[in-house]
Amino acid sequence: MGYIDLKYKPTENDVVCSFYLEPSPGVTLTKAAEDIAAESSIGTWTEVATMSDRIRKLGAKVFSIRNNIVKVAYPEELFEKGNLSQILSSIAGNIFGMKAIKNLRLLDIEFTEGLVRSFQGPEVGLEEVREITGVYNRPLLGTIFKPKLGLTPKEMEVQAHVIYSNGIDWAKDDENLASMKFNKFEERAQRMLGVVDRIYSEEGRRVIYAPNITGPLDKMLERAELVKELGGRCIMVDVLTVGWSALQYIRKQNFGRIVHGHRAMHAALTRNKKHGISMMVIAKCSRLVGVSALHTGTVFGKMEGGKEDVSKLNEFLKSDFYGMKKVMPIASGGLHPGLVPKLYNALGNDLIINFGGGLWGHPQSPAAGARAIRQSLDAALKGISLAKYAESHEELRAALKKWV
Amino acid sequence: MGYIDLKYKPTENDVVCSFYLEPSPGVTLTKAAEDIAAESSIGTWTEVATMSDRIRKLGAKVFSIRNNIVKVAYPEELFEKGNLSQILSSIAGNIFGMKAIKNLRLLDIEFTEGLVRSFQGPEVGLEEVREITGVYNRPLLGTIFKPKLGLTPKEMEVQAHVIYSNGIDWAKDDENLASMKFNKFEERAQRMLGVVDRIYSEEGRRVIYAPNITGPLDKMLERAELVKELGGRCIMVDVLTVGWSALQYIRKQNFGRIVHGHRAMHAALTRNKKHGISMMVIAKCSRLVGVSALHTGTVFGKMEGGKEDVSKLNEFLKSDFYGMKKVMPIASGGLHPGLVPKLYNALGNDLIINFGGGLWGHPQSPAAGARAIRQSLDAALKGISLAKYAESHEELRAALKKWV
Repeated sequence: MGYIDLKYKPTENDVVCSFYLEPSPGVTLTKAAEDIAAESSIGTWTEVATMSDRIRKLGAKVFSIRNNIVKVAYPEELFEKGNLSQILSSIAGNIFGMKAIKNLRLLDIEFTEGLVRSFQGPEVGLEEVREITGVYNRPLLGTIFKPKLGLTPKEMEVQAHVIYSNGIDWAKDDENLASMKFNKFEERAQRMLGVVDRIYSEEGRRVIYAPNITGPLDKMLERAELVKELGGRCIMVDVLTVGWSALQYIRKQNFGRIVHGHRAMHAALTRNKKHGISMMVIAKCSRLVGVSALHTGTVFGKMEGGKEDVSKLNEFLKSDFYGMKKVMPIASGGLHPGLVPKLYNALGNDLIINFGGGLWGHPQSPAAGARAIRQSLDAALKGISLAKYAESHEELRAALKKWV
Repeated sequence: MGYIDLKYKPTENDVVCSFYLEPSPGVTLTKAAEDIAAESSIGTWTEVATMSDRIRKLGAKVFSIRNNIVKVAYPEELFEKGNLSQILSSIAGNIFGMKAIKNLRLLDIEFTEGLVRSFQGPEVGLEEVREITGVYNRPLLGTIFKPKLGLTPKEMEVQAHVIYSNGIDWAKDDENLASMKFNKFEERAQRMLGVVDRIYSEEGRRVIYAPNITGPLDKMLERAELVKELGGRCIMVDVLTVGWSALQYIRKQNFGRIVHGHRAMHAALTRNKKHGISMMVIAKCSRLVGVSALHTGTVFGKMEGGKEDVSKLNEFLKSDFYGMKKVMPIASGGLHPGLVPKLYNALGNDLIINFGGGLWGHPQSPAAGARAIRQSLDAALKGISLAKYAESHEELRAALKKWV
């Protein structure tokens, strides 16, 4: 049977997937595209006796092939509503392993309204992040505790007060900090959220602590409950190493917390531009399952990801998505105060800018690091060059001297 | 600080990871290796004020660099026991996205005994699969219902009796069949497990049905409970699109069922030999979290995966792993009766051989397809060539004529 129909126009009941496709030697692009549409919908490598006209109607259709970009329309009935794992097993499943393809990359998924509405999306979205923090007119300034592993809860508690009281809005655990011998989750959450409360009583500012609850689901539930009991406003999850099924379950609990989504492992899928799955697909999936704030790239930091790609991701997170709440983008990885104006100009206001080494590595102290970060944002907001602003702000001056 | 120590000998308290590494242009292999060891343990891109001698001891050590193969030893304390998501966020997390690398592939993880023993592993392992089915001295013969989507529960029920009664031991849903408009999980499980019981009463054979419970965790739990209530012996899960956190939770429920692990999406990670994560790593993780039987490749079918790779995976699944139960390998994807002797000779006895199109596409009927499969295995077991055996077995003859 045919899975190619270049005259077909997708309807509102079709899920449309865009792939970059390179066929294997000896296979035409059209044949490889057809094989993909078959394998990801109802077909296999040979005709089967159990096929029928009723079932043929469920077949995916390749409706566009241009310069290795293949677009495929899938009838919505191929997917179970609210089941992201099933959707991905179809359109991002076996097809990557087929001998007919040399390289295949899932570039984008256009979901139907019906499918989008079958997911809960963020319980706490971008707008509530603004309300909770009381910060509306500038990016939020965040930090990742460094060294990424090794600090004790007590050490983090001491440092947390230093950095929050010097202007940081948001402090997060690193992606590989869970509950360790030297830093148990429970003690860390108690101490860190104690500091959050202390900052509120001292300054009236609601700062955020994002404790990493990543783990087997029973542990994640216990840890999220503890955060809620302690009055924490946020839980952090490593989206990909945890997985979609558990994330959907966490969302269904209605914990009422910001879900800070870290994307550790994404680049195993997203880095190669010819094979794998794009970060846009991961961002869409993350929004569907309820992530409130998501790491999308820095443009200028230690991790790959250019301006165009990161901007598109952030635009999607803040765009209308059939009424689903918006997601706050997070820039994180190799940032320092010298990059803030560039980042602000490139990515705009709705952003959490995260600093690890760019705060904790400040040549004077972490307190000075926090102040330098705030100063760099102030300069960007006022439209004053960093060089000029640094003349009257010594922490910024020291940071620029070290890193620019 | 230094993360390179080529004189270092890993101890039994080290987790050892092997990577294929290509640095970015202008970066030496040694520098890129050091950056990876830093980012995946305790370091970042700049020195930080909060570093201490106590924390430095937790640093990973690059102890071997040979022809782009880099080996790194990680102190066990960097990992939370029983938390696979955290482990992967460390050693298979941010590092794939670093600008310092051009390509990076996690080839293997040698876990410590302490870490392995902190996971439950399969509740039902290879040996129980043999006991449940009563089949000891040959590979099990399985089928995936085809078309992969579109059949109704009633249609599957009818076909199930046909194929089981003609020699198939194990029938599974396809990876993208969950609970669909045209095929609800509950009705399917009832009808299919009814056939399984009927076969037992008719023939005394315990055949297996592997219903795909893939979905958000609450749905998976409901579906697994239903299977248990109905007396089903097996549940099927799409390991990667479901995710590790939910899988660990499923394992903790002690459902007492065979967990049939499908690896849909793996090739987005595993296909590129220079970047991503190897199937060996996914196989090890699957065993840790309790998969009983795992798709590992066919050597000869429609999916990539050569003999050496698949043999190594299967050897691992059946090897000693600090006392953890063994996992039954599954060969699935593009197989037909003409490939059975080659497959049997290449991969041995402990194997589930799965046929989709190679059964349902038989030119005579699905019943003939099932018989042809059984005949091809009989020929292999007796050491008779297929051509010879086909002389006296017409279903095999028809299959060979179509596919060989």
